Amino acid sequence: MKTMKYSKKGILVVVSGFSGAGKGTLMNRLVSTYENYALSVSMTTRQPRPGEQNGREYFFSDVEAFEEKIQKDGLIEYASYCGNYYGTPKDYVISQLELGKDVILEIEIQGALKIKDTFKDALLLFVMPPSVDELYKRLIGRGTETEEVILKRLERAYEESEGIEKYDYIVINDDLDDCVQEMHQMIKIARNVPVRNIEFIENVRTELKGISKGE
Amino acid sequence: MKTMKYSKKGILVVVSGFSGAGKGTLMNRLVSTYENYALSVSMTTRQPRPGEQNGREYFFSDVEAFEEKIQKDGLIEYASYCGNYYGTPKDYVISQLELGKDVILEIEIQGALKIKDTFKDALLLFVMPPSVDELYKRLIGRGTETEEVILKRLERAYEESEGIEKYDYIVINDDLDDCVQEMHQMIKIARNVPVRNIEFIENVRTELKGISKGE
Repeated sequence: MKTMKYSKKGILVVVSGFSGAGKGTLMNRLVSTYENYALSVSMTTRQPRPGEQNGREYFFSDVEAFEEKIQKDGLIEYASYCGNYYGTPKDYVISQLELGKDVILEIEIQGALKIKDTFKDALLLFVMPPSVDELYKRLIGRGTETEEVILKRLERAYEESEGIEKYDYIVINDDLDDCVQEMHQMIKIARNVPVRNIEFIENVRTELKGISKGE
Repeated sequence: MKTMKYSKKGILVVVSGFSGAGKGTLMNRLVSTYENYALSVSMTTRQPRPGEQNGREYFFSDVEAFEEKIQKDGLIEYASYCGNYYGTPKDYVISQLELGKDVILEIEIQGALKIKDTFKDALLLFVMPPSVDELYKRLIGRGTETEEVILKRLERAYEESEGIEKYDYIVINDDLDDCVQEMHQMIKIARNVPVRNIEFIENVRTELKGISKGE
């Protein structure tokens, strides 16, 4: 397989973006179109909703087990929201990366930047709408939220927009197929970044040193 | 055109790599395969060799004109080598970038890093052979150089290898077509980097601020 000459380890991909920008649809399409992806499943202490399955939407946990997970450094990141914990279990992510799978996480901006502190070579993608008008239309188009909730989301979007420069790439979500392909290319090409190929580079250095000294 | 939603300005692409790694072949193939590239032509004070055309291999110049170019900050970088000046004229590069062309320069490592100081958003690619054995074979295979010259090139390759981590990507040159495609993707995707889309991002911020404040 072609990419195998580069880093064999998978890429940790963190996807953020405004509410209504279409992150979820993009990620699902990406994962169903190509074989090299694994979607990370979050752990939460909130109650399962009807139809939700343990291990599919979330790993459901009680508070005690969740806090033990925190204690044992078993989460890549976690946050508390509306009285419930949400977090990303480390073991699943690490094992998938070791298998060479590119692991996709959807996390809001603070969590994403925290991950970058720990996983220096995580790839951070920020999904944007083609315009604010379009974002507004999409939020209204859902027909499920009050004007007040929509305004809150737009305020939140403004706050999040302050951090966009810290991401590796933006993805402007106008055409789904185009964007899925773009994201796939970003992730594929990330295997060519030097920091992910240190072993190969070091081998070349050692051999060059040997050969040029006639060893 | 699809990519036009991102940065309209071209990408300045700097290609370095060991002698014998195949940079020239890759770059020529890239430029002849896709339409969005312009190869930068260097300026030099050395005499034209038979068959060389002014403006194709080099812009040929006398020392006085070259030094005036230096004085007037008209070169992106320059160096003196075997008593002759070599440099990259700034006006051609800038005008091509403004036209939306991605401009490819081949420059050795010190020059490449100097360019990154001035053009923060230049994309730096380092072409590597699949192995040192392969590099050695390619250098010998040319049949034009003495063992001594080959050893000098390998020593130089070792020195250059120290800087690989400062490049954005490595390209391991085993299969020409694969590598040309990889390079093309790296350059295409570079248009999605936030720093190259500041205007779009700022517009979104301004509009979000306006809309969320009910302006």
